[in-house]
Amino acid sequence: MTDRRSFLQAAAAAAAAMPAASSLAAAAAAGAQAATPPPAPRPATSATAPSRLPPGVSRADFNKVLTAWRGTVGGDWVFTSDADVALYRDAYSPYWDEPEERVASAAVAPQTLEQVQAVVRVANQYRVPLYAISTGRNLAYGGSAPAYSGSVVLDLKRMNRVLEVSERNAYALVEPGVNYLDLYEHITRANLDVWIDPPDPGWGSVIGNALDGGGGWTASPFRDHFGSHCGMEVVLANGEVVRTGMGALPNSKSWQHNKWGYGPWVDGLFRQGNMGVVTKMGFYLMPRPEAMQSATVQVTRTEDAVPLIDTLNLLESQHVVNGSTQLFGAGASWSVQIPIYGPEKVVRAQMEYCKDKFAKIANSRFTEGELVRTPLDAATLARVRKVNFGVPDLSTFAMLGRNAQNPSPPGGHIGFSPIIPRTGEALLEYSKFYTDNLPAVSERGTLRFQGPVYMTNWDRTLVAMIMFPIGKDKIMNAKMRAAFEKWVQLAAERGWGEYRTPAVFQDLVANTYSYNNRSLTRMRETIKDALDPNGILSPGRYGVWPKHLRKA
Amino acid sequence: MTDRRSFLQAAAAAAAAMPAASSLAAAAAAGAQAATPPPAPRPATSATAPSRLPPGVSRADFNKVLTAWRGTVGGDWVFTSDADVALYRDAYSPYWDEPEERVASAAVAPQTLEQVQAVVRVANQYRVPLYAISTGRNLAYGGSAPAYSGSVVLDLKRMNRVLEVSERNAYALVEPGVNYLDLYEHITRANLDVWIDPPDPGWGSVIGNALDGGGGWTASPFRDHFGSHCGMEVVLANGEVVRTGMGALPNSKSWQHNKWGYGPWVDGLFRQGNMGVVTKMGFYLMPRPEAMQSATVQVTRTEDAVPLIDTLNLLESQHVVNGSTQLFGAGASWSVQIPIYGPEKVVRAQMEYCKDKFAKIANSRFTEGELVRTPLDAATLARVRKVNFGVPDLSTFAMLGRNAQNPSPPGGHIGFSPIIPRTGEALLEYSKFYTDNLPAVSERGTLRFQGPVYMTNWDRTLVAMIMFPIGKDKIMNAKMRAAFEKWVQLAAERGWGEYRTPAVFQDLVANTYSYNNRSLTRMRETIKDALDPNGILSPGRYGVWPKHLRKA
Repeated sequence: MTDRRSFLQAAAAAAAAMPAASSLAAAAAAGAQAATPPPAPRPATSATAPSRLPPGVSRADFNKVLTAWRGTVGGDWVFTSDADVALYRDAYSPYWDEPEERVASAAVAPQTLEQVQAVVRVANQYRVPLYAISTGRNLAYGGSAPAYSGSVVLDLKRMNRVLEVSERNAYALVEPGVNYLDLYEHITRANLDVWIDPPDPGWGSVIGNALDGGGGWTASPFRDHFGSHCGMEVVLANGEVVRTGMGALPNSKSWQHNKWGYGPWVDGLFRQGNMGVVTKMGFYLMPRPEAMQSATVQVTRTEDAVPLIDTLNLLESQHVVNGSTQLFGAGASWSVQIPIYGPEKVVRAQMEYCKDKFAKIANSRFTEGELVRTPLDAATLARVRKVNFGVPDLSTFAMLGRNAQNPSPPGGHIGFSPIIPRTGEALLEYSKFYTDNLPAVSERGTLRFQGPVYMTNWDRTLVAMIMFPIGKDKIMNAKMRAAFEKWVQLAAERGWGEYRTPAVFQDLVANTYSYNNRSLTRMRETIKDALDPNGILSPGRYGVWPKHLRKA
Repeated sequence: MTDRRSFLQAAAAAAAAMPAASSLAAAAAAGAQAATPPPAPRPATSATAPSRLPPGVSRADFNKVLTAWRGTVGGDWVFTSDADVALYRDAYSPYWDEPEERVASAAVAPQTLEQVQAVVRVANQYRVPLYAISTGRNLAYGGSAPAYSGSVVLDLKRMNRVLEVSERNAYALVEPGVNYLDLYEHITRANLDVWIDPPDPGWGSVIGNALDGGGGWTASPFRDHFGSHCGMEVVLANGEVVRTGMGALPNSKSWQHNKWGYGPWVDGLFRQGNMGVVTKMGFYLMPRPEAMQSATVQVTRTEDAVPLIDTLNLLESQHVVNGSTQLFGAGASWSVQIPIYGPEKVVRAQMEYCKDKFAKIANSRFTEGELVRTPLDAATLARVRKVNFGVPDLSTFAMLGRNAQNPSPPGGHIGFSPIIPRTGEALLEYSKFYTDNLPAVSERGTLRFQGPVYMTNWDRTLVAMIMFPIGKDKIMNAKMRAAFEKWVQLAAERGWGEYRTPAVFQDLVANTYSYNNRSLTRMRETIKDALDPNGILSPGRYGVWPKHLRKA
């Protein structure tokens, strides 16, 4: 069973390296949220808990709510002290220690489905906004802090059971508190011959990552974490439990076999959404592939970016290249890594086919990497990038930013992640865009941008990621915010849209998806108002606000 | 431009072989719909058009509606005469010529998005129930007849433009009236090197098939038609146009590259749904594979069904076997066909790998088929099953039932299509279930059931299809209905649920998905009421009824 101390240590790791000068009280001093929705009331900190109140909730009502929650989950699992609540701050907040920083008023951590239902029912009764997190490690995209300041964090970290892993049918059913390290350990201990698909931050929740639209580093289609889920259990705002897909059939034994089930498919509403609290979710797993081999293809003329991407498209759409490709380069010189997973003899045949196809680009260079057989011995595992072999790890993430292992790096980062068309022409246009606009934000090279890193093989998407540095320096953060906002707009003008963004920019990005006077957002709002009429579940997440918080 | 006469000929083909004794007037004679929702008012036929009225709509109002629609789409494209409206009957209706047969009151056929919007707006104003169809060829699962009797069929057959086919990015963007034959012809004429994934009835709509949850006969993941769509344009009940995914970003050029876009994903709501009218939809296409080879694996001991399916699971979850597998057999003898698509040398390596894996099952027999190279020459095409090579065709469908080529077969059919767990144990249990229960419905072998056909490779689903014969004989049809209803219940008791069903059985099946007092259905109803408060769009489709038509 989770112990409160280790639980809070885990939360502390997520919020690691809070600036020394941190003062939530100061941060909470009033101040309108510039480009963002209605500011939350931010009462001054007092010595007695709770020091903050959720917006629109009276002290008397909030006390009733807290009392009810304590009765449900136990007094140890309702957090109201400044010190405890501060652990839910987003360590990578672009508004760190500024009035606009999104902060929680309290947190509650249920351990069972029935407790989640009870917590939600009380919140609904008193109209207390909740912000559901799985493990809160969504760093670079908002962390554990709420989209709407003053919300109570509904922390699902204690719901950490791996409910089932089937080797025969290659799937897992987990709760939200299960992270990639947990699931890996469970599978390893049970000696099951299936791989998970870890993203860089292996301490993150399997469910949380999928719901935020994240991906990992092994093979397609498993790399698209939302796309490879199968079946959900969800608590709605009224406390009702829904099971999706085949899970709606009592006694179904195929909940994790068939994702569609019968009738309209509602699962998509919970992706980057706030229509319910996901309490269980199934995922397809990859049977351990016998081998992996990668190759690098390099071209040295600007115009060859076009056949390079066209060839890549062909190979990926054929599912011959199935690994997590990465494109590097700029201007005239481009290279791409093409990992292939499968039985050894199949991988060799696929690699030969790729070589033939790329050979049609004059002066291209095709360099085969080592073919790595699985399972990997310790020596091999020590020298490869672990996440490419289904082993969760924090090394890349540690390299990038602030975390428990590296508590005081120059800073954290936020991800600028537009989807661009998967063509060489678009790649060149984006590369030029980056070069043209970089001087305006880079302080003559003193700020360490990371990227662009281009990834092409995830639901046919070409994502062009750039990491913007975020730190403790308010002046630098302000420049980064301005640059980020400008780039989102410039990208949108060119038809490039972000696939994911930190909470503080979620309205900004939602507003770029503006076809027909934001009809898609308005449709989502209509659904939100129907499923959650009091607007208590994660208001504002990904730009979907409940009626009473929408701007006129 | 579509000419009214050819349009009606097309409709006639869909409703081909209407019984000679057919009389809509007789059929329309009052009578409650037994296991189905509120009966539609069925006014007696009169000499003047419209002879029928939609339920709850006065003659005066309906005349206004028809006048408005005629103004929008032209008088030729609003159908009210008995003869015209009869063409929308479901030729495979299990209630053919009986009072419970679901029939339309009229039909309207817009040609443009703007016309669809205008038609829907008027319907919404006067609360006229519409039933949207693409080409109306959903035979065996409801055809072109409405789920709610008396609805006006919103026939989208005239919206038949192939808007784009990209060879470089391997996708198509089409309108609802485009069928597989049209898309194939477009691609062939433009000499593009991509395949479509046709189902058996090649005359069906590409969009309609995907929205009904259908699949085809080439390779995974393209065989899952809803799963391989990318981006939609939808008209909501209020006439608003929504574009999903990257389509919500003005000027986006990646609408058919990335399906998820940003924020909650609403596309799933339109699968087997009635939340909007889909007017455009993108689909991933498969670049022409160099080759296809199939093999047959046979086992001859009952218990070997278990390793047979386990091995198949492994190979399919690894994406080594990517074609449309089919399992045949019963009792002790089982065989499975495993088609593999890809570059020739890759296919050969995959086949070798499969052979090794299946060889571990003692006494199994592995027989390799011919390796067929593409593009196929005419002689080869003439001797293969065309749909397995991306060529739409009607031969299997013609073999099965009633259609334009075969207007008076013994009868049509309806599909009993439960999802069962993908294990050998479940396969054996289902097979026994079939044998045990067949005598009760088969009239000592005089009724020609087709199946079970087991398909395993479509989103990890094991579907066990049985075709129930349906004909002109009311006594036989009544027996078939009773048997079908009984089998749905018996299957549900064992945890097996239908993935799709004809309109007249959609409530029956929806009610088997009853977890937590039908919470999934109730969630869908909540969304339905919010998006379509007057309940005008395809009421009752897949068991989702608007508020005013729900049972107490």
